[in-house]
Amino acid sequence: MLPRGRPRAMGAAVLLLLLLLVVGFFLFGRDPDYGLGTTATLDEDPYRSRNLSASSPQLLLPPKCEMLHVAIVCAGYNSSREIITLTKSLLFYRKNPLHLHLITDAVARNILETLFRTWMVPAVVVSFYDAEELKPLVSWIPNKHYSGLYGLMKLVLPSILPPSLARVIVLDTDVTFSSDIVELWALFDHFSGVILLWLDRLQQTGWEQMWKVTAKRELLTLMATSLADQDIFNAVIKEHPHLVHPLPCVWNVQLSDHTRAERCYLEAADLKVIHWNSPKKLRVKNKHAEFFRNLHLTFLGYDGKLLRRELFGCPNQFPPGAEQLQQALTQLDEEEPCFEFRQQQLTVHRVHITFLPHQPPPPQPHDVTLVAQLSMDRLQMLEALCRHWPGPMSLALYLTDEEAQQFLHFVETSPVLSMRKDVAYHVVYRDGPLYPVNQLRNVALAQALTPYVFLSDIDFLPAYSLYDYLRASIEQLELDSRRKTALVVPAFETLHYRFSFPNSKAELLTLLDAGSLHTFRYHEWPQGHSSTDYSRWREAQAPYSVQWSADYEPYVVVPRDCPRYDPRFVGFGWNKVAHIIELDAQEYEFLVLPEAFSIHLPHAPSLDISRFRSSPTYRNCLQALKEEFHQDLSRRYGSAALKYLTALQQARSRA
Amino acid sequence: MLPRGRPRAMGAAVLLLLLLLVVGFFLFGRDPDYGLGTTATLDEDPYRSRNLSASSPQLLLPPKCEMLHVAIVCAGYNSSREIITLTKSLLFYRKNPLHLHLITDAVARNILETLFRTWMVPAVVVSFYDAEELKPLVSWIPNKHYSGLYGLMKLVLPSILPPSLARVIVLDTDVTFSSDIVELWALFDHFSGVILLWLDRLQQTGWEQMWKVTAKRELLTLMATSLADQDIFNAVIKEHPHLVHPLPCVWNVQLSDHTRAERCYLEAADLKVIHWNSPKKLRVKNKHAEFFRNLHLTFLGYDGKLLRRELFGCPNQFPPGAEQLQQALTQLDEEEPCFEFRQQQLTVHRVHITFLPHQPPPPQPHDVTLVAQLSMDRLQMLEALCRHWPGPMSLALYLTDEEAQQFLHFVETSPVLSMRKDVAYHVVYRDGPLYPVNQLRNVALAQALTPYVFLSDIDFLPAYSLYDYLRASIEQLELDSRRKTALVVPAFETLHYRFSFPNSKAELLTLLDAGSLHTFRYHEWPQGHSSTDYSRWREAQAPYSVQWSADYEPYVVVPRDCPRYDPRFVGFGWNKVAHIIELDAQEYEFLVLPEAFSIHLPHAPSLDISRFRSSPTYRNCLQALKEEFHQDLSRRYGSAALKYLTALQQARSRA
Repeated sequence: MLPRGRPRAMGAAVLLLLLLLVVGFFLFGRDPDYGLGTTATLDEDPYRSRNLSASSPQLLLPPKCEMLHVAIVCAGYNSSREIITLTKSLLFYRKNPLHLHLITDAVARNILETLFRTWMVPAVVVSFYDAEELKPLVSWIPNKHYSGLYGLMKLVLPSILPPSLARVIVLDTDVTFSSDIVELWALFDHFSGVILLWLDRLQQTGWEQMWKVTAKRELLTLMATSLADQDIFNAVIKEHPHLVHPLPCVWNVQLSDHTRAERCYLEAADLKVIHWNSPKKLRVKNKHAEFFRNLHLTFLGYDGKLLRRELFGCPNQFPPGAEQLQQALTQLDEEEPCFEFRQQQLTVHRVHITFLPHQPPPPQPHDVTLVAQLSMDRLQMLEALCRHWPGPMSLALYLTDEEAQQFLHFVETSPVLSMRKDVAYHVVYRDGPLYPVNQLRNVALAQALTPYVFLSDIDFLPAYSLYDYLRASIEQLELDSRRKTALVVPAFETLHYRFSFPNSKAELLTLLDAGSLHTFRYHEWPQGHSSTDYSRWREAQAPYSVQWSADYEPYVVVPRDCPRYDPRFVGFGWNKVAHIIELDAQEYEFLVLPEAFSIHLPHAPSLDISRFRSSPTYRNCLQALKEEFHQDLSRRYGSAALKYLTALQQARSRA
Repeated sequence: MLPRGRPRAMGAAVLLLLLLLVVGFFLFGRDPDYGLGTTATLDEDPYRSRNLSASSPQLLLPPKCEMLHVAIVCAGYNSSREIITLTKSLLFYRKNPLHLHLITDAVARNILETLFRTWMVPAVVVSFYDAEELKPLVSWIPNKHYSGLYGLMKLVLPSILPPSLARVIVLDTDVTFSSDIVELWALFDHFSGVILLWLDRLQQTGWEQMWKVTAKRELLTLMATSLADQDIFNAVIKEHPHLVHPLPCVWNVQLSDHTRAERCYLEAADLKVIHWNSPKKLRVKNKHAEFFRNLHLTFLGYDGKLLRRELFGCPNQFPPGAEQLQQALTQLDEEEPCFEFRQQQLTVHRVHITFLPHQPPPPQPHDVTLVAQLSMDRLQMLEALCRHWPGPMSLALYLTDEEAQQFLHFVETSPVLSMRKDVAYHVVYRDGPLYPVNQLRNVALAQALTPYVFLSDIDFLPAYSLYDYLRASIEQLELDSRRKTALVVPAFETLHYRFSFPNSKAELLTLLDAGSLHTFRYHEWPQGHSSTDYSRWREAQAPYSVQWSADYEPYVVVPRDCPRYDPRFVGFGWNKVAHIIELDAQEYEFLVLPEAFSIHLPHAPSLDISRFRSSPTYRNCLQALKEEFHQDLSRRYGSAALKYLTALQQARSRA
């Protein structure tokens, strides 16, 4: 580093630190009274204060398009959900480019990287910092506050944020904005005199030493057995009151049970930030709890895609891929009959992987994850599925933001579901009229963590023994992930909601003979499973190999690195068929397992299948998709793909 | 009227008129260029204008809690939907009490009265005025603008609004607010000097004469064959420019295809009102169309119940019933096991009756409306139902605001559904975790317009002939609505999705004997329909009377004024049973029709039935509800209700 660089970087760090304190103290404060006496609005005539607070004329806003920096410490699954609601409220009111500095553990990073990449919000930059690096700096402090070690990290943020960062607003994950964060940012300028005044003194003392000394003394002299970050901030501030310029309390309206928050504001317009810093969160008892809850619920259920708003007149705001995507969308012809299909294929859905707490399965060489996708109308399948499949699952859910909250409530109130930590739920947010079935499958597939995946559908219940049987078969067949094998799980169906699920192949065959069970779609779509050769399966004692045939779409177990589903197939029809063709083209061997089975439960036809049946346009568009798929196939596999095209043409000539 | 009263009232009317013009001109203007040159923000340094527009320091806001008055002309089904989105955007940003003056036709009034009554927004007053009264005043003007006669009514608003109303903001239904309307209201004060200055001149001229003279001259001299309201406003203003003080164009950002709207604003913060005044509406091509669309969609999908926010510190803001309701909700014990049920029972859902255009059936003495309720996961039943029931239907849909938009799209893209104008859809907005089945039924029942109703469920398809057969039966049996008769439609079920629906009773009996059909819930809940006496029905040639028995829940045709469903039954279980008990207690005769039938199609179990099956608490709560229902029954019917209680106790002792 150049000699001249060092003092500047250090100065910046100290500046950051101060502002961190200024903001941090009020945004993280748990002492409800502190600072209330200093608010500007309380002692004045309400009429005047109304106009003041509505317009904040004292504050000169920063130049248009100035980037605002926000730092948030975030760890684990639940905080990752919280941070999204906070971000929505930020984005809803913001008019400036934002740079989010996220200090995360591996879990939160994995979730939030995917989320922000797919969210594609213009004029938002996100940087990640590894919280692990900060742990040693604070782990010596005993603490028992519910935010734990990650709360304490706010003390040492300057050591991880880039030295070039002069100012940053530090936020807890449990705050909701009800105003534009630029107004908070503007306070930096307002207070800049104060900060410059104390710069040299701070440089002499050094923040790092200051808080450590204080913390150690607190631990020794005050008989404290644990300290939360705020205890330390409070102690430092008590010793060095000149460090702090209090924020008006409207920037931290705290909703603990006994807070006197209402002394802080005269009316809704005054509120800037709501802080849900009670362990009771939304169920907190407070005079205006209903009002605050509604504000929070507004953003909880807010459709995040509506926040993909560009800022008028600010340059270079597009996230990677967004401009090309926008162009492709603009080039679509709205009058074309398959416009809806084209648009749906191009849609980038926001994706929130591992929406709920999850324990990844321990690494085992033959383990299998069940992969499936669903929307709200299939939620009631989950409990039964959990009973039938004791192994890991990776499920993609196609939901609105509001439905995601209903889903959360559903899981929390189900003893069966809330017990299972090996089921990973990935929320793909709804956008557009057609169900993006293969995009959903790909999300679930990409998040499977075992070497093998069972590619199933949500309305199938596997044999109780299937999970164990598959793992044993993979071991016995000495498959490894380099061998291209697709194990076929024969599919059956029942037309009865209540039926006793067969405990063995023998029981299944009895039900089949009695007419209580059928091979899957035997009446409507026999070609989908005929290659499985059910009559051979009846007698089979060992796995047997079968050949691909037109429209074959068995449920298979394959290595996790298998080809992805073709996302062009949206809505109903041919989405699995195309995937099986892809497997066959890549020379996967189809091996039917003699003891494996899975049974489809009845359900009402989906909206998409209803549209397929009733709309000629829908069927024509599906046909067009098939043809384009085959063209791509020929390009990629050359003459080897010829047999699929021939099969398609034969099917068409029969139709 | 007192001599002193008249001039004051007149002065107020003229004042109103002027302000109507001031606002009206810009909010209704279709000339995109007019007024652009006069905006305050365009000629200034953007940095300064940014701070100006963000804080509007020139404007002194009116006193806290001052009531703001808004007038809107609204006619028909589609405008009634538009006005709700406008209202949500108004409510989202407002901080003042609002008084909405709605000038409506009978259709809009019916819809909006119900909506606002159930919306229960604090600090909102709604008054209705009959647009019919204004028609003669403007019907002489030839016009072909798409808003038609109702657009012209803005010219004569002063003659219908109360004379005491000094100021009012007049809005089109197709605007979206992106700021607090109080800022617009504040412009009244800003311009008050101008208005006072011209008051006496206006009094001499008289607005009513002024616009009529102008309109007539336009029609004569300019060879015009039609005039829209804005043509007349423009012409009057051209002659009397002193009448108008232009509004900054940010208060009317017009989204026509070729508007130069972007000359009006520098950034999002500048925008105050978006005006969707292109017939292409949301599909308009405009540089920032995406931005504007997202703002509009924000409110389109916004959960309206979140706008039930009280205004801090303003008195008397509660709509009728709201305070008692709030008290009752507060008194519930959150720890009680049936808390969710209690809360759901007390919930007042927003109701939007006749969500889509509807032609009421012509009055016929024996006509029957099919009444049912559904949520999103049963939408695919609607087309089949339309094919089976050619008569009027009244359907309640339990939806979120966002789902209501999906539903709209679903109907619009379905040829079968969009053709049918005799199906009335009533949206009841979701709130709470339990399906309020009986509240939904009551909404649909209350909106049925024929003398008789067929109380069905959405997963039943009636015999193709049922509608005609029921009307004929009612006529032949010489029923009239005073005779307490419940015609029983025997219920069957199939377990197959695809089956050929029987065209006659004979065909049905063949399927029944072949085992393809069953009597409804024969295996799970035989007592629900055993009283119908299926074996007698097989042979019956004439209607026969049957007696009530425990748990009987047939599908019946009754006079429209039949007892309502008991709203305490939410979620799954006993909701129809209780209604049939009520009918029996009121001495309705149950008469089974020999040729009537209806068939239940299979579907996956609902979430509520799954919870009922898996949760002992759920079952216990249902039991508690039953007991309370019986207590009420005893209170109302005395010893006559004893038999129901005995039946309940017998059932419990058997269980």
